[in-house]
Amino acid sequence: MTIVDAKIHPALMGSLSPNVTVDEVINFSPGPTSLPAAVEKTIADSFQTPGLTSLALSHRSPEFLAILNHAAASVRSVMSIPDDYEVLFMHGGGHGQFAAVPLNLCRDPSDIATYVINGTWSLRGKDEAQKYCRAQVVDGSDPETGAYTSFPDLTEADIHPNSKYVYLCSNETVNGIELHRLPKLPDSRRHIPLVIDASSDFSTKPIDWVNSGVGVLFACASKNIGHPGLTLVVVRKDLIGTGKASPLCPGVFNYTTNRDAENLWNTPATFNIEVVGHVMDWIQREGGVDEIECRCIAKAKALYDVIDGSSGFYSTPVTNKSQRSRMNVPFNICGGDEDLTNQFLIRSWEKGMIGLRTLTPFGVGDHLRASLYNGVTLEQTHHLATFMRRFCEKYS
Amino acid sequence: MTIVDAKIHPALMGSLSPNVTVDEVINFSPGPTSLPAAVEKTIADSFQTPGLTSLALSHRSPEFLAILNHAAASVRSVMSIPDDYEVLFMHGGGHGQFAAVPLNLCRDPSDIATYVINGTWSLRGKDEAQKYCRAQVVDGSDPETGAYTSFPDLTEADIHPNSKYVYLCSNETVNGIELHRLPKLPDSRRHIPLVIDASSDFSTKPIDWVNSGVGVLFACASKNIGHPGLTLVVVRKDLIGTGKASPLCPGVFNYTTNRDAENLWNTPATFNIEVVGHVMDWIQREGGVDEIECRCIAKAKALYDVIDGSSGFYSTPVTNKSQRSRMNVPFNICGGDEDLTNQFLIRSWEKGMIGLRTLTPFGVGDHLRASLYNGVTLEQTHHLATFMRRFCEKYS
Ligand SMILES: Cc1ncc(COP(=O)(O)O)c(C=O)c1O
Ligand SMILES: Cc1ncc(COP(=O)(O)O)c(C=O)c1O
Repeated sequence: MTIVDAKIHPALMGSLSPNVTVDEVINFSPGPTSLPAAVEKTIADSFQTPGLTSLALSHRSPEFLAILNHAAASVRSVMSIPDDYEVLFMHGGGHGQFAAVPLNLCRDPSDIATYVINGTWSLRGKDEAQKYCRAQVVDGSDPETGAYTSFPDLTEADIHPNSKYVYLCSNETVNGIELHRLPKLPDSRRHIPLVIDASSDFSTKPIDWVNSGVGVLFACASKNIGHPGLTLVVVRKDLIGTGKASPLCPGVFNYTTNRDAENLWNTPATFNIEVVGHVMDWIQREGGVDEIECRCIAKAKALYDVIDGSSGFYSTPVTNKSQRSRMNVPFNICGGDEDLTNQFLIRSWEKGMIGLRTLTPFGVGDHLRASLYNGVTLEQTHHLATFMRRFCEKYS
Repeated sequence: MTIVDAKIHPALMGSLSPNVTVDEVINFSPGPTSLPAAVEKTIADSFQTPGLTSLALSHRSPEFLAILNHAAASVRSVMSIPDDYEVLFMHGGGHGQFAAVPLNLCRDPSDIATYVINGTWSLRGKDEAQKYCRAQVVDGSDPETGAYTSFPDLTEADIHPNSKYVYLCSNETVNGIELHRLPKLPDSRRHIPLVIDASSDFSTKPIDWVNSGVGVLFACASKNIGHPGLTLVVVRKDLIGTGKASPLCPGVFNYTTNRDAENLWNTPATFNIEVVGHVMDWIQREGGVDEIECRCIAKAKALYDVIDGSSGFYSTPVTNKSQRSRMNVPFNICGGDEDLTNQFLIRSWEKGMIGLRTLTPFGVGDHLRASLYNGVTLEQTHHLATFMRRFCEKYS
């Protein structure tokens, strides 16, 4: 492993600023990122309370079983998950599910699955799935540029009637494209279950499980609901059962074995599960998922208003405004001007704002990106909006 | 998920006792379990220190990269891992590796692998591997009882010369059988790499990587080195590379992709990795792995001395004394007498000792089991030994 070049300005490396106190840090990271302040306090307090923490509890102890059952019940209640769905806590992150989905839903590699591709993550999901099924693609890229800037319409012709599932990513974290409500498949395809990668938007808006035909929904825990090392999977009961998965499905990825063992097929990520429970409790206390959605709308609007009002100083790639992500707001400064972009990063960093550019292998050009997960407040978002407005006034 | 029957005495359910202060709790759980007190303090303190914790750090931030590199380097240094091995932090726990091992080392399902079976975990490892290779078994069970009570000798005839690897579990957590040093394969089989499940003994004794012919060693983090949600994999470089793994290997389980991406192929379990780093620092400060081994020998001796000196009041199933586990000491009271066993559990629980019986689906009869991982001190072990001695005096 290589240590990053120390000569580059820390703001450009995504480092923390030593000059701001922790209360001033505003974490716009695309994840992992800060949890709601109240949740962070609950966690910190739990390490000060006498008694074993969940780090030290056997996964088979009554104390941990209570934590596990509470977390599962809270997810179910916050997201109004019907009884005919299971809530599973699994290993492997989002990428684990990229493999687990076809391995659970396609018994045979000749089985067909439909992948709607409109960004980095649906593409990676499809690439992984191709090892285990015949993935047919609904291509959402811009025919001229090849870029992903909107979610495509789904027509009957796009979806093979024997498709085992239709896969989509409800929020493309890198590209900033979000489905604020799940799409309905054409009538003749409504028998096909949807598989949703909700890694970066789960818990931020209601889901109409039954009417949308959700078969499987998964979310890695490292954005809105927890920290990495855990994946939440919600799966409709009729899709699991003995003999449904591919014989090649590793046991840790098998929905049936994990359901049958009540999430204890192997040692689950105990502490990570507790944290998800805390986040769900927080959502409940704050007024539930509808209230969270209102906040997400307000936070995103604060930034898009600045972008749209900047006469082109800022621009955002997503062409369909109704599909703009509330979670991840990608933007360019003067078409990606390097000097201005660096200037922006350094000045905002001096004010404690971090995570606006991540050095990822999945970068889309010179975009900056503000991620507004549950850990970011409206007030913090206004700080960024105000900064952006002033920066635009100064340099445009 | 079902809540456990509340009418049963909490001591028999493996609950915590409300009557002892946390300082008095002694956690003999087979894992997850307590970490060394100093490590628990480091973690608790990190949540009080201003600045983002690793729960909130992007996995691509310089701060987390420093944590990751430190953890990997510390594992390497504590365990004297030669340069021709990679240190990987993966998802999926021990069971994830049960699949990952054959998926990485057998390109074709007709490839042969040799599994030495001497307990619960090697058996489960073999069962999972059979999905991906031809697993040939060296059966270590007692020919009369079928029980696992020792590690078998490995002869040339046992191991097919084309075997891709020889798999063994260096500490059978449930059965209490440990290899204090790795075995050498017969000369004519020394070209075959060993694969070691060291989930419950890694970091407690030195490993002679090269002379033992270790190809892969893995350890789930939930016993000696951390908490669940993370798996450590050490793999010899010549065993990985493009085209070596099965085309069916999920990316998250692929050693090559994870190595190439420097442990960032997908979001790693950031906080869990930090904790492993803390445990390695602690081992270093305490005097290194040789000192840890001395303590393990002393802890185990304290209990086995009581058992052996009890004139049969206590008995332990492992027939070969040189293979008695230092990590997990299974024992029976008067051949498994239920009343005495319950009495033992309740009385020891009143003194704060927990984890001596876990309600696991892998139970071996009525055995109790004291697990003596890094989080348990010699002094705490003496408490149990003294208790056992008095209990024997009173009831034998
Ligand atoms: C929408 C989406 N899917 C999948 C992933 C991959 O998750 P992981 O890194 O846990 O494999 C991410 C991670 O950033 C994501 O944003
Ligand atoms: C030796 C050994 N191997 C494998 C496992 C399984 O690990 P996990 O529960 O992380 O899958 C265990 C867990 O107890 C173990 O003790």
